[in-house]
Amino acid sequence: MPPVDIKKSWKEVNKERKAIRKNWKEKKLLKTLGLKKGFEGIDVNSEEINNTEFIEKLKNDVEQSEKTVKKKLRTISIAVPGSILENAQSVELKTYVAGQIARAACIYNIDEVIVFNDKGEGNDNKVKVLTEKNKNRACLQLARILQYLECPQYLRRHIFPIHNDLQYAGLLNPLDAPHHLRQQDEFPFREGIVSGVPIKKKHGSYVNVGLNKDVRVDKVLTPKLRVTVKLLQSKDGSKIQYGTVVPPSQPKLELGVYWGYTVRLADSLSEVFMNTPYKNGYDLTVGTSDKGFSVDKLFDNKEDNKQKDYKHCLIVFGGVDGLETALECDDKLSVDDVSLLFDMYVNTCPKQGSRTIRTEEAILISLAELRKLLFNDS
Amino acid sequence: MPPVDIKKSWKEVNKERKAIRKNWKEKKLLKTLGLKKGFEGIDVNSEEINNTEFIEKLKNDVEQSEKTVKKKLRTISIAVPGSILENAQSVELKTYVAGQIARAACIYNIDEVIVFNDKGEGNDNKVKVLTEKNKNRACLQLARILQYLECPQYLRRHIFPIHNDLQYAGLLNPLDAPHHLRQQDEFPFREGIVSGVPIKKKHGSYVNVGLNKDVRVDKVLTPKLRVTVKLLQSKDGSKIQYGTVVPPSQPKLELGVYWGYTVRLADSLSEVFMNTPYKNGYDLTVGTSDKGFSVDKLFDNKEDNKQKDYKHCLIVFGGVDGLETALECDDKLSVDDVSLLFDMYVNTCPKQGSRTIRTEEAILISLAELRKLLFNDS
Repeated sequence: MPPVDIKKSWKEVNKERKAIRKNWKEKKLLKTLGLKKGFEGIDVNSEEINNTEFIEKLKNDVEQSEKTVKKKLRTISIAVPGSILENAQSVELKTYVAGQIARAACIYNIDEVIVFNDKGEGNDNKVKVLTEKNKNRACLQLARILQYLECPQYLRRHIFPIHNDLQYAGLLNPLDAPHHLRQQDEFPFREGIVSGVPIKKKHGSYVNVGLNKDVRVDKVLTPKLRVTVKLLQSKDGSKIQYGTVVPPSQPKLELGVYWGYTVRLADSLSEVFMNTPYKNGYDLTVGTSDKGFSVDKLFDNKEDNKQKDYKHCLIVFGGVDGLETALECDDKLSVDDVSLLFDMYVNTCPKQGSRTIRTEEAILISLAELRKLLFNDS
Repeated sequence: MPPVDIKKSWKEVNKERKAIRKNWKEKKLLKTLGLKKGFEGIDVNSEEINNTEFIEKLKNDVEQSEKTVKKKLRTISIAVPGSILENAQSVELKTYVAGQIARAACIYNIDEVIVFNDKGEGNDNKVKVLTEKNKNRACLQLARILQYLECPQYLRRHIFPIHNDLQYAGLLNPLDAPHHLRQQDEFPFREGIVSGVPIKKKHGSYVNVGLNKDVRVDKVLTPKLRVTVKLLQSKDGSKIQYGTVVPPSQPKLELGVYWGYTVRLADSLSEVFMNTPYKNGYDLTVGTSDKGFSVDKLFDNKEDNKQKDYKHCLIVFGGVDGLETALECDDKLSVDDVSLLFDMYVNTCPKQGSRTIRTEEAILISLAELRKLLFNDS
């Protein structure tokens, strides 16, 4: 701040200071905007600094791109009860049903699949069949198969030890997701596992990303960690492929490409809502049931745009006995009416020709019916 | 016609005759309208005959009910290639995939399922693997399982002899369709099979409809024929349950209830269109493909109401290699572009997260996406 000139009145001094502050603020803003747009070398002292039009345009551009980023960072989670596996008539078919859930999630670019226990803790009379030992058996198996299928083929043997739950996983239809890359596929991102091969101390790590040779990253990472790697341009003549570790959301953010789902276990219906990985939880929750209101009404009511402004959407599916039973089996939830748990309680298949719709069918049907509402990110 | 009064001018006579004709025509119309509305005993000479308002109202009522009948008689057919079974990894899973098709058809009230051969006649170099013996193997198996699942449980052992194709049918999820009635269910219609028990000559037949006792119908029918029976009110004290044989479309027409699908085999893609059971064929044909135009555009174009006026709609699904291959394998079709075969060639899953969508998934997704357009019969 310039020294105060005692010849000037305080009014003048304040006016001058205000102008300086304004100028400084604009410079700062411009610098930030410039950085965001990738113009790191922007000359904040250039003539353009006083060009209001230029600043406004830059502001708009950045706002626009921020909106796009926000939309790209939107997530959709689905929650399915593990009990649906119990309803399958053979071990092979249990596995197949889990595979159907995984495929539906992948087709509709789902970010998170939550497997929840809708049969209570096993101390309820209604659910005597469930013992402490088997109460979460179906949930665990469903979650394990979902994780297995989401993992790129070349990483599976490193991440998943041989397990009974995966006995028939070889029969399952592959997800064919964009991050399931073959060796010859060229793509700027790859999923990988940190290998045990040591480099000089503090010089980084090698990551197996399914290529002929491991990729070298600058961070020192724990072996066996699964990471997303952005491949860097090879230096001329260098045989080493370099990469940098990025968040798993980076491919979606940069290229708009689907990059798989995460799997979470929930011990009850209430935990589906509570233990969320998102800071402020889910801001749009949808329950599906043949007792809900018809999905057609959802689209008639076009003024209600709340749906379109969500950040993290959660769609919950019931099991054989519907979400009503899941609510009854939950000690922590005190509401009587399950529809009160959700922003929308929807019947996504009005006039169904079959008396029942199975959960694995309901997922495809519901995501198709809600697609226009929820996936409007283009 | 009254004798001509020679005192009157011809002009007057003609005027009188015109009036009589008009009156007579209106009476006739009223009688027809009355009959259609079920007022068989309507008095055509009553005062109401000259009440134009009444006639107009009756006319409108009948028009409205005719429209409803037309809408109720609308049909939707789906065509699926038999080859999708070949893609399943075990005999059990082949059966399961067939079951998924049956369930999807039932959930969406489909009237006809056509199983077509998309792999050609076996004399083409491209399809050498198919021999005369096995060329339609998958088609036959798919069709057989579809028929088996559509048939009410109590009739199955009478209609389907033990067959290898049905070896794992016991593992399949039931359709739970409205015509799959249990013994204690009360419903005015029932599917049945004509039993061999003889009645006096020309006095009718007995039909097994899954009740304790066979139902007696007035028609003499060949034993083992599958028929739809409308149950009649039992006469007081009579132990015999009487019924009358009706067309299978009657339950849908009278009560709006879904009454199962028929199954048809087609030797090629062209036969799907040609050997139709409907007099004037299909008047709305839809092809599904990820190469089609986005389903969202279909709904943007609201002025094109052709879709809403169809009588018989056909939706065709491709196999692993898409409808393009089915066209190539068809000698009778000379078009180059498969989209020319259809009124609409639609991609029902824009922005799919998986590179491939399996036919059994595509059916649920497509029917959900097209539901509002095609099932607008309420």
